[in-house]
Amino acid sequence: MKKDKIPSQGVISKDPLTASQKIYVKGAIHDIEVAMREISLSDTVSNFNGIKKVEKNDPVTVYDTSGPYTDPSKDIDVKKGIERIRENWIKDRGDVEQLNDFSSEYCRQRFNDSKLDHLRFEHIQKPLKAKPGKIVTQMHYAKNGIITPEMEYIAIRENQRMEECFKKDNVLWKQHQGNSFGANTPTSWITPEFVRQEIARGRAIIPNNINHPESEPMIIGRNFLVKINANIGNSAVTSSIEEEVEKAVWACRWGADTIMDLSTGKNIHETREWIIRNSPVPIGTVPIYQALEKVNGKAEELTWEIFKDTLIEQAEQGVDYFTIHAGVLLRYIPMTAKRVTGIVSRGGSIMAKWCLAHHKESFLYTHFKEICEIMKAYDVAFSLGDGLRPGSLADANDEAQFAELQTLGELTKVAWEHDCQVMIEGPGHVPMQMIKENMTKQLEDCDEAPFYTLGPLTTDIAPGYDHITSAIGAAMIGWFGTAMLCYVTPKEHLGLPNKKDVKDGVITYKIAAHAADLAKGHPGAQYRDNALSKARFEFRWEDQFNLSLDPDTAREFHDETLPAEGAKVAHFCSMCGPHFCSMKITQDVREYAKKKGLEEEGKALEKGMAEKADEFKEKGSEIYL
Amino acid sequence: MKKDKIPSQGVISKDPLTASQKIYVKGAIHDIEVAMREISLSDTVSNFNGIKKVEKNDPVTVYDTSGPYTDPSKDIDVKKGIERIRENWIKDRGDVEQLNDFSSEYCRQRFNDSKLDHLRFEHIQKPLKAKPGKIVTQMHYAKNGIITPEMEYIAIRENQRMEECFKKDNVLWKQHQGNSFGANTPTSWITPEFVRQEIARGRAIIPNNINHPESEPMIIGRNFLVKINANIGNSAVTSSIEEEVEKAVWACRWGADTIMDLSTGKNIHETREWIIRNSPVPIGTVPIYQALEKVNGKAEELTWEIFKDTLIEQAEQGVDYFTIHAGVLLRYIPMTAKRVTGIVSRGGSIMAKWCLAHHKESFLYTHFKEICEIMKAYDVAFSLGDGLRPGSLADANDEAQFAELQTLGELTKVAWEHDCQVMIEGPGHVPMQMIKENMTKQLEDCDEAPFYTLGPLTTDIAPGYDHITSAIGAAMIGWFGTAMLCYVTPKEHLGLPNKKDVKDGVITYKIAAHAADLAKGHPGAQYRDNALSKARFEFRWEDQFNLSLDPDTAREFHDETLPAEGAKVAHFCSMCGPHFCSMKITQDVREYAKKKGLEEEGKALEKGMAEKADEFKEKGSEIYL
Repeated sequence: MKKDKIPSQGVISKDPLTASQKIYVKGAIHDIEVAMREISLSDTVSNFNGIKKVEKNDPVTVYDTSGPYTDPSKDIDVKKGIERIRENWIKDRGDVEQLNDFSSEYCRQRFNDSKLDHLRFEHIQKPLKAKPGKIVTQMHYAKNGIITPEMEYIAIRENQRMEECFKKDNVLWKQHQGNSFGANTPTSWITPEFVRQEIARGRAIIPNNINHPESEPMIIGRNFLVKINANIGNSAVTSSIEEEVEKAVWACRWGADTIMDLSTGKNIHETREWIIRNSPVPIGTVPIYQALEKVNGKAEELTWEIFKDTLIEQAEQGVDYFTIHAGVLLRYIPMTAKRVTGIVSRGGSIMAKWCLAHHKESFLYTHFKEICEIMKAYDVAFSLGDGLRPGSLADANDEAQFAELQTLGELTKVAWEHDCQVMIEGPGHVPMQMIKENMTKQLEDCDEAPFYTLGPLTTDIAPGYDHITSAIGAAMIGWFGTAMLCYVTPKEHLGLPNKKDVKDGVITYKIAAHAADLAKGHPGAQYRDNALSKARFEFRWEDQFNLSLDPDTAREFHDETLPAEGAKVAHFCSMCGPHFCSMKITQDVREYAKKKGLEEEGKALEKGMAEKADEFKEKGSEIYL
Repeated sequence: MKKDKIPSQGVISKDPLTASQKIYVKGAIHDIEVAMREISLSDTVSNFNGIKKVEKNDPVTVYDTSGPYTDPSKDIDVKKGIERIRENWIKDRGDVEQLNDFSSEYCRQRFNDSKLDHLRFEHIQKPLKAKPGKIVTQMHYAKNGIITPEMEYIAIRENQRMEECFKKDNVLWKQHQGNSFGANTPTSWITPEFVRQEIARGRAIIPNNINHPESEPMIIGRNFLVKINANIGNSAVTSSIEEEVEKAVWACRWGADTIMDLSTGKNIHETREWIIRNSPVPIGTVPIYQALEKVNGKAEELTWEIFKDTLIEQAEQGVDYFTIHAGVLLRYIPMTAKRVTGIVSRGGSIMAKWCLAHHKESFLYTHFKEICEIMKAYDVAFSLGDGLRPGSLADANDEAQFAELQTLGELTKVAWEHDCQVMIEGPGHVPMQMIKENMTKQLEDCDEAPFYTLGPLTTDIAPGYDHITSAIGAAMIGWFGTAMLCYVTPKEHLGLPNKKDVKDGVITYKIAAHAADLAKGHPGAQYRDNALSKARFEFRWEDQFNLSLDPDTAREFHDETLPAEGAKVAHFCSMCGPHFCSMKITQDVREYAKKKGLEEEGKALEKGMAEKADEFKEKGSEIYL
């Protein structure tokens, strides 16, 4: 049964992660403060042959998606929503107006229905919209040479203060050559101008609806850090508003870069309002799901008018990107008949059913330009849906899938003519040897618009573990150039994810995304790995936990074997016990090697690194220009 | 505290997996019975427009590592050990003799110490050894043109009765082209002769000590199914004999192809006996660990004599492969001094410490030929250890690692001259873009001896989730040609795995290995995926669970959302609820397409497939010859 309990303070997760504090980095162009997480480390204390040495370890700054929830200085009241950090940026551009009422008829009905008062967010504001004739998309500004506060925010955020670290610490700077960025040392920082260029080119998007000023700007594009999306959403079967808001906050806490609200039950309008008002990350939806609710689940009764009203309803609430399955064309549908698993995309199957019932192209396709008009009045980004994605390995990379991809490429160009931001959704279920073809074709067909894939799952035989079957594919496709990875939880194919599943899905996808950043050679990507490895080698257990993606679990697992507090500072690890430890031996080896004259060599190396660093600073920090 | 409780019947897991039964396939050359697991499926019942159709679904046969434990007709008594299926095969060859006593002094001491009686396996047999002048390795037989029962067993086992399935079912035969095997249809079954050739060439090994007749023959080589190893083992800190035996049985139940016993505590001699006598899979060890116990953890006090006695002790117990870190040469040790994490291999650091203390090459290297003499008298396979493997991304693919690999290649050739079987251990921690180089170099340096890697982990920042960070690397390196993947559990770097961790590790690695089999295009690899996807598409929930790697977890996750029994046969899935279901819609699409004449096309396709099948049967089944 569906419950509609509205969120209370009690259920919202909001302590900082251990040893972490929120820091804010100021902009140089705009008056902005970019939130990051700083992890404090303890000192390295060594004691060989009676000589005690203490080495300071600088804190490590990491990308932070958790929003104000992890900042104890911020007053969190879910009933009011979080701070509207972008409100002035949006209004200062002078191209938006506040409407007197909601443009969507459905929205007005819900708003005026007193029976819904107990469910409703209390502080609903009237929506913003582009002034007549204006376009308010980040792509529009970018094409016109404007570096927005959002763009500067992103440039600072993506760099994670690595420029600072680079200046003061050589040891942790060791980074292997990547296939996209090269670089043993960081030769390229993200600049606001580079962000602008990528947006103007359509190679990246900033999903930032003008009605979602609470969101912290983030970018999706293959020349930036790989992002991950977490799906939440109630269904006809289970879950409540309270659970969904907490799930969103919880997903952001562990690293979700965007949230998709895929609710299909009743009261999804009200649930969505709660989620958006409390979300520091962009929110995506699949509007056709709600439109279908409005016609009681009968796909053939959907109309352009109902769909259009739904788009406007959601755009004025602040949804940042819409999945639109406009590529499901009538002639592609029979291509799926021979498949092992037919059409598995919910949106795809809705549109297929509609197309068959009416025997004509869908209103998503025939009204695509009108959709663009709506998108550009609020800056909602397109996520062009892959309605014909494969639902099994057997159906991977088939005719239907690639036919639709070509259509998505054509629609991308239409959207770009309207200065609308676009990303492209991708599969699905694909065996490893066929993953690269997906990326290659997507780049070609869609002119480098960012790719946003679900997994892909690399085998079908592990329901209950599809976060893992898909993390393998996700890491690989991220390496090949996919900009955002849609997470898969352990419950995929089986049921609705609970909070544990959401966390498992998010952490698993942070792993995949980070593995991809490393493989691409994203500047500074390896810094945190090196810092953690150094902590591990030096038996700084607490630092090892705190630098990890999930300090709570790391600590808990360690304590299962060695619960005593003393064990966390002990110079042996829990695997080998106190008598023998390989790491201890290695420290002896190092001492030996030093004695053998390598100390000199080490110094020469250090000097070389320092010279390289100076060289880099002299040359400036950009290679993209 | 270490407990020594000996195993009781109660703790051993031995029910068959749901809907599964053990079947035995007879050999054609030898009098052998190859165990497999057959999963029964329910019928497909469809009802469109009032016409009910019932389609039988043939059972699916899968590779089974669980041994007699999942066969209710077998009498299991852990105090007696499992059936000695290979005993006659070994004795019939006429090249072994039963010794009057154990050759190892340490072994005799333990055996005659009445204080240990309460810990001791009751039915210890006197060991077998090659008759003077004889070599009893599978490689020796293979080089002499002999197809052993072990080889035929493996050929039958690897094919998983897919030849049968291929003859009767075309729909599930759909398989994508792989990069190693090609093949949209199966064009190559494993033959006993092919097994013999691969063993003779050194490209695969059969780890099968003559003193472990309980083990079911299996093969490790890149032209066969990718295998996985599970590490178990107590340590000075925790765990008991009882737990270790159950952990081994448990790991085999979920798919471990071999078990490494990495115990480091007291009484490891006795624990090992229990494990071997009850293990249906090959057992590997790192003998230097036990040797170190014998000198109270002081690496520098190790001697060739102590080590040699340990090798013989373990060989006569029945250990099937030994990790030997003979590639850690004195001149390589200083190469690790500049690393972020030095030497992290326990065996590697022991040998490094010994080398530094004595300032000479280790006895593993200097006595390598004598080690070969021991190995070939019992058919213990070498697993040449990578003592200098990287312990962090920062240290991946470095000078020390690759220098050692070259030495392992040289030692491989020495071992082959003795007709000893060899595999090579590999890393460790490697970012994705550097994984392939490991495989390429290993094939070159070690002349295609099978590669056996730990992971590799693709990032260092996720302790608590290193089964996942490493599954990404493992799937990739498996695809590139690694023959066996050593599992990593969620507790890696943090503590000792419990039963849940062992299962998580095993299932995760079955996923990686299977994803690799699919990517290589192993004949029939996709069959189970297709069968599961078909079940999923047809809402045969129970079949979907039963075909999965872990039916228990899949069922449990499903029941969390929809606990009612009715839901498992309902024609909707738990994600979308009863009103709307994409799969239901797809079935409508299929009906529509059929009406549109695709039915005819479908028939033509079926006919084409049948013709191809006939063609294949006419041509015979081998392409390797």
